[in-house]
Amino acid sequence: MKHLISIDDLSKDEIIGILDKAEDFEDVALGLRSCKILEGKILANLFFEPSTRTRISFETAMKRLGGEVVNVSAQEASSMAKGETLADTVRVISNYCDAIVIRHFLEGAARFAAENSSVPVINAGDGAGQHPTQTLLDLYTIRKECRRLEGLTIALVGDLKYSRTIHSLIKALKLFKNKIYLVSPEILALPEEFLEELDGNAEKAKLEDIIESVDVLYVTRIQKERFLDEEEYRRVAGSYRITPEIVSRMKDGAIILHPLPRVDEIDVRVDSMRQARYFKQAFYGVPVRMAILSEVML
Amino acid sequence: MKHLISIDDLSKDEIIGILDKAEDFEDVALGLRSCKILEGKILANLFFEPSTRTRISFETAMKRLGGEVVNVSAQEASSMAKGETLADTVRVISNYCDAIVIRHFLEGAARFAAENSSVPVINAGDGAGQHPTQTLLDLYTIRKECRRLEGLTIALVGDLKYSRTIHSLIKALKLFKNKIYLVSPEILALPEEFLEELDGNAEKAKLEDIIESVDVLYVTRIQKERFLDEEEYRRVAGSYRITPEIVSRMKDGAIILHPLPRVDEIDVRVDSMRQARYFKQAFYGVPVRMAILSEVML
Amino acid sequence: MKHLISIDDLSKDEIIGILDKAEDFEDVALGLRSCKILEGKILANLFFEPSTRTRISFETAMKRLGGEVVNVSAQEASSMAKGETLADTVRVISNYCDAIVIRHFLEGAARFAAENSSVPVINAGDGAGQHPTQTLLDLYTIRKECRRLEGLTIALVGDLKYSRTIHSLIKALKLFKNKIYLVSPEILALPEEFLEELDGNAEKAKLEDIIESVDVLYVTRIQKERFLDEEEYRRVAGSYRITPEIVSRMKDGAIILHPLPRVDEIDVRVDSMRQARYFKQAFYGVPVRMAILSEVML
Repeated sequence: MKHLISIDDLSKDEIIGILDKAEDFEDVALGLRSCKILEGKILANLFFEPSTRTRISFETAMKRLGGEVVNVSAQEASSMAKGETLADTVRVISNYCDAIVIRHFLEGAARFAAENSSVPVINAGDGAGQHPTQTLLDLYTIRKECRRLEGLTIALVGDLKYSRTIHSLIKALKLFKNKIYLVSPEILALPEEFLEELDGNAEKAKLEDIIESVDVLYVTRIQKERFLDEEEYRRVAGSYRITPEIVSRMKDGAIILHPLPRVDEIDVRVDSMRQARYFKQAFYGVPVRMAILSEVML
Repeated sequence: MKHLISIDDLSKDEIIGILDKAEDFEDVALGLRSCKILEGKILANLFFEPSTRTRISFETAMKRLGGEVVNVSAQEASSMAKGETLADTVRVISNYCDAIVIRHFLEGAARFAAENSSVPVINAGDGAGQHPTQTLLDLYTIRKECRRLEGLTIALVGDLKYSRTIHSLIKALKLFKNKIYLVSPEILALPEEFLEELDGNAEKAKLEDIIESVDVLYVTRIQKERFLDEEEYRRVAGSYRITPEIVSRMKDGAIILHPLPRVDEIDVRVDSMRQARYFKQAFYGVPVRMAILSEVML
Repeated sequence: MKHLISIDDLSKDEIIGILDKAEDFEDVALGLRSCKILEGKILANLFFEPSTRTRISFETAMKRLGGEVVNVSAQEASSMAKGETLADTVRVISNYCDAIVIRHFLEGAARFAAENSSVPVINAGDGAGQHPTQTLLDLYTIRKECRRLEGLTIALVGDLKYSRTIHSLIKALKLFKNKIYLVSPEILALPEEFLEELDGNAEKAKLEDIIESVDVLYVTRIQKERFLDEEEYRRVAGSYRITPEIVSRMKDGAIILHPLPRVDEIDVRVDSMRQARYFKQAFYGVPVRMAILSEVML
């Protein structure tokens, strides 16, 4: 049985296979072509914490492929959790569907679910752990919008210490040859273990020094909760804010990505600039999740 | 792109066009005929406040036409709202569907959503603002049950000051030639601006003076919260309560409507009288919303 | 119109008819065969209290038969209940669907709903009242796993006083000739009225005395809330706990059932023993509910 728990479980070839498949599904995701390959299949969305964008994106992907979806909300899931173990919940739910998408607040929950499930399990984020479908859609967006996945200069900006999205992306990026810049305040720097994974292909940098050379500016949110002092937070967050002035210095064909939700780390005036691709990136979640769903269920 | 934000946006001909279309869909709404014209389409129900009747009515309309529905509950919507602006939420959601039905507690939210959406937006109520699909189903019910939309005597009863339903209905009724009676306690009287819109076709009246002449008795709830004094509320509400005695004075073919939920402004013994059409009115929400959904998506 | 409110409403032949029908649907429930007999139909799940397993089981059953489902969550249902009577809610909802599954915290609510509905109503549990679809799936599991419904030795274990599941099952079992053992602490003994229904075919017993003779061990949860004293609870619950040692004494072909969720009344090490059928029992909810749905809607 095929599960998707961590991006580490996939080889470079498997990743590329999924991206190619997603490419084929793009017109289906846009509603331009009908393709009912998952007709008769049921997906269970088992969300122990809310993540509406991810949930809807899976739901749309499933439905555009002719499948059906059964949702278990965070409230329902937590009420089940009070009455029984996660193992039992998963065993029962897997009786009622052909695959499970699980979101959980605890690291390792998705793999544990997979071990107890009689159907394929897809990890849609488990605590500080993994969120592999986000990483695949990030890679898809880069390949699609930059027309390649190697030989790029990619700047990761913002909270590199706690962002699960960044950590997953780094694990995938190490399979491809790119120059990585790490742009973050010191207290939110990338942990040493991830630096090692990047194996010398990454270096810390200041935004103003590299903005003209990057192909991809991947921006994440700097959360207030990481700072002891609100004054300090405001000062730091302000200096990592992407404004039209900064964007205007980017080179031709360069793109800005963001996993969303965006608070104010990207100025809304950037939205209408040609570099802004974060809403398109959100859309790409649909064809990528179609590829993953068909991969595990067919 | 076609949105439906306010009843004001529709001409008389457009309104009649929607009602005619709804008529065609009635047997589909009843499940008597299959008609899959929205197959492959996805509707997102984005409800920032709960309105289960409206939500289900749209969901059923969509599904009876072969379409799929993705629901975002009030809880999920408010959790998204904490993390990002309405503009961003709508931009993201519109990536995952072919149309959005939005319900919001703030007036103007639906129009703002439409401006930020890449797919058609239907307003399912925005604060003190509009609820155009309710108005269209009210008109549909009147036309269906009275066999015409003009030359009628229509009494609007209850809270004419705060009821969004009444205000929307008045905006639509002014397009048709009818005699309107306004029946309300003084402190819940229709605001001057709406009186002007009715342009002399409306007059204040007492229920006992006009009950024998009305074709349509449109009853709304008088809310306790509008009164400073519970005693006062009880006295007032009691004198606008529709009882079998009152109904028995109504003329042949006259009907009673109510947008529901009904508390006790209509005596339950009225439910079995031939004048009671408020549950049928609720049903008519399905064919009318079918007409609207197919209008904006096809 | 056909409702399913109480197991008492069904004759022995009708029960067997449903079980036979469920048998036919088993491969559809497993996703091995396509059967769209409920295509174009809409089921409303109206859950005034959460019961996610039951809700999903109905939803999957409906969708595997080609039908659509509209869910009303406990939160939405309770918010509707604040604004209107159950009678009105059911009248409105029945306009939007072809059948209603109702779960309510008050005994009698399901029958009351049926009286006010224009479509068939299925009781998915009403307070201390009935839960007939659970009973039908219990009977189905026994017949399926023991290859007969009569001539069996069945031990009911745990809380026989308050368990709605047990009471419903007893009402059904009295139609079939079986030896029933009642295994419970004295303060959770089966109420006299149910004993009378069993008409001499049941007797109280100790687990250690009968474990070697039973064909079916039906275990239910002993709830802490039933005891005044936590110490007392722990002592009692512990002595009704099903361990591998106890199970190893069971005869060939004997099975263990449990309505789930299970807390610790069955040791997890029992899960992998061949007698454990409680997760399979959960799965059987799908074909049985398919049979019921098609019975009431076709």
